[in-house]
Amino acid sequence: MTDISPLAPAGFPDMPVIAGLSLATAATGMRYKGRDDLMLLLAEEGAVFAGCFTTSQTASAPVHLSRRGIASGQARAVITNAGNANAFTGSRGEEAIHTYRTLFADALNIAPESLLIASTGVIGEVLQADFILKMKDEIIQKLGRCSWHQAAEAIRTTDTFAKGATTRFALAGTHITINGIAKGSGMIAPDMATMLAYIGTDASIRQDCLQILLSRATEKSFNAITVDSDTSTSDSVYLAATGQAKHTPITDPDSTEATVFYNALLGLLTDLARQIVRDGEGASKFITITVTGAQSDKDAKKIALSIGNSPLVKTAIAGEDANWGRIVMAVGKSGAPADRDTLQIKIGGYLVAENGAAAKGYEEGPIARHMQGQEIDIEVDIGLGDGMATIWTCDLTHGYISINGDYRS
Amino acid sequence: MTDISPLAPAGFPDMPVIAGLSLATAATGMRYKGRDDLMLLLAEEGAVFAGCFTTSQTASAPVHLSRRGIASGQARAVITNAGNANAFTGSRGEEAIHTYRTLFADALNIAPESLLIASTGVIGEVLQADFILKMKDEIIQKLGRCSWHQAAEAIRTTDTFAKGATTRFALAGTHITINGIAKGSGMIAPDMATMLAYIGTDASIRQDCLQILLSRATEKSFNAITVDSDTSTSDSVYLAATGQAKHTPITDPDSTEATVFYNALLGLLTDLARQIVRDGEGASKFITITVTGAQSDKDAKKIALSIGNSPLVKTAIAGEDANWGRIVMAVGKSGAPADRDTLQIKIGGYLVAENGAAAKGYEEGPIARHMQGQEIDIEVDIGLGDGMATIWTCDLTHGYISINGDYRS
Repeated sequence: MTDISPLAPAGFPDMPVIAGLSLATAATGMRYKGRDDLMLLLAEEGAVFAGCFTTSQTASAPVHLSRRGIASGQARAVITNAGNANAFTGSRGEEAIHTYRTLFADALNIAPESLLIASTGVIGEVLQADFILKMKDEIIQKLGRCSWHQAAEAIRTTDTFAKGATTRFALAGTHITINGIAKGSGMIAPDMATMLAYIGTDASIRQDCLQILLSRATEKSFNAITVDSDTSTSDSVYLAATGQAKHTPITDPDSTEATVFYNALLGLLTDLARQIVRDGEGASKFITITVTGAQSDKDAKKIALSIGNSPLVKTAIAGEDANWGRIVMAVGKSGAPADRDTLQIKIGGYLVAENGAAAKGYEEGPIARHMQGQEIDIEVDIGLGDGMATIWTCDLTHGYISINGDYRS
Repeated sequence: MTDISPLAPAGFPDMPVIAGLSLATAATGMRYKGRDDLMLLLAEEGAVFAGCFTTSQTASAPVHLSRRGIASGQARAVITNAGNANAFTGSRGEEAIHTYRTLFADALNIAPESLLIASTGVIGEVLQADFILKMKDEIIQKLGRCSWHQAAEAIRTTDTFAKGATTRFALAGTHITINGIAKGSGMIAPDMATMLAYIGTDASIRQDCLQILLSRATEKSFNAITVDSDTSTSDSVYLAATGQAKHTPITDPDSTEATVFYNALLGLLTDLARQIVRDGEGASKFITITVTGAQSDKDAKKIALSIGNSPLVKTAIAGEDANWGRIVMAVGKSGAPADRDTLQIKIGGYLVAENGAAAKGYEEGPIARHMQGQEIDIEVDIGLGDGMATIWTCDLTHGYISINGDYRS
């Protein structure tokens, strides 16, 4: 077992109940012993679901099925197992899903299409439906008696800590709550990585509008983190809005009310995304990379990810070396327009390079102290336009090699 | 000092003289003690030069200058120093170059534009021209008394062995020789990486035709290797053709004679490119990845590089784990069209996955033995078209982290 990440937060937040949503967990014993590894989320009738999924061309069977379930507008529940991703398992993997999905849906008294599926863990091993099926009655009976914290614990795989966030705000005079939990620590890269997230809110939002808001917020949060540039076949973010808060339903994604909700949602997703990076495999430093002055926001993100995915930048930071030459290299290779002579680089707020050369009066001392800390800030101004983006990543250490290379995952 | 790579070839090849080309080396003491670190290559009048350079947007001053020198059609010589890349050094870096370039060109009795410059080493430190200038008379005097092996030794930085290749073949009844040397071991990725290569031949080829042949061959050799997905600011490949072999000059890049020359050149560049991968920082396995059945050759290369750059694939191979699930993941994230159900994966010639699932009768034994070797073969058939590509890479080990993270480079 891996120790808890040195970058882990102090503890799991207290999270209130979301009216209209219930959770349950159970232990199948499929891969893990002595812990829950199955999680069921059920929304009352009237709730709507949105979802964002991996862009992988080899997405897992559960992803294909959940995508169709969200598109149908009939989603009501999600069942998740940890330890086996049921990805690249062919027709036998699909048969396994259909077996347990139908029986769970019957027991929940919902249509099979209303039950979404998420699986995370090893790729290429057929999931044995029996392990899940034998917990059916127990987990359904427990619905509503399980906390968000317990749900967050049940979906962990290589995660060293459970991840959760909650926010409460006023929307046109009504109190709204958003809760979220997530898992993920390796195979994390733009376009989501091996991560699952479950967001619940009592807000009342029309489904098409909810989907737009979730997609926008995912782009700036879960799609702005990278651990190792690898993209999982199973990434999924689910957002259920129960509509039990008594405000006028939101139907326009650009209205004032939608913007209030969006800002709260983005804050919460960013919090969860940053927790995933803090649990990055082998991570010893949390790195924030902000790029400004690019020709577009898209270019800024491309440059920021080129820096955040560079093994040479990440190993330098692991070695507490303010090696800004490698940052210049990573800017240069991104493919987005950049100009050596207008580039400006700051580390920990200290100017290290400008006008195509090392900054005048550059002092090693304060920057070296910044590099010794756990939170590293890199700011790059391209000097060509107004485009900007922030991404989060971690360093690349011996720990990453040990976790992924020293034994079979 | 790093030990010699376990994947190093048995020794440096015997390389003949190229008529019309002379080499010299010297020790400046700028960064390294007790070894040569300066190399001069001079071609007699009548020779033509072609060049391929990094695609980095933050390319070094020497790259900009050499690009212009090749384009002018007047190139006659290249001077190279190892230990300082003179990259991102602003106007002071450019002044340093102009100082020594003018004085060297005068002493060689050629125009300053005819002298190309290459520098490799640390980024962001201004090169001190004095170190190079004080060796001017000595190195010019030594011209013609230095072997290709000595030149290959002088351009090394973190390389653990000198890299060279030679080939001899008949072109319309005349014997032609091509020699090549290269350096490079980290920051190696498509679009060339921190690598320098110097190729010389006595063939007679018109400059525009030589450039076309070099660009085509570079695409399939130096641009088909990756160590860590990082791209250097200094990558350069130079090819000088002296025209001293007595055959009819080649003027059509698609003629039979050009094809004979191209095939020999491609073989030689591929040999050098593979040597660079064998010296990849921390490498313990040499990996060949062949993708067939993609919708185009470009898609096949994109998929092959997605596999070859995946930290999860590379750490699995370091751990001698035939983790084909991670190969599926890397195919899926490449962005090129792929279909889970038509994908076929072989490791060491053994079928491991097909029809969207693990291969029937898959046996761990022989594959595990293949993974324990130093030469790993991965073949992926996408099953959608005729596109194919081969790339070469190495595994990702603790050694890479130590070299790049444990102390300042």
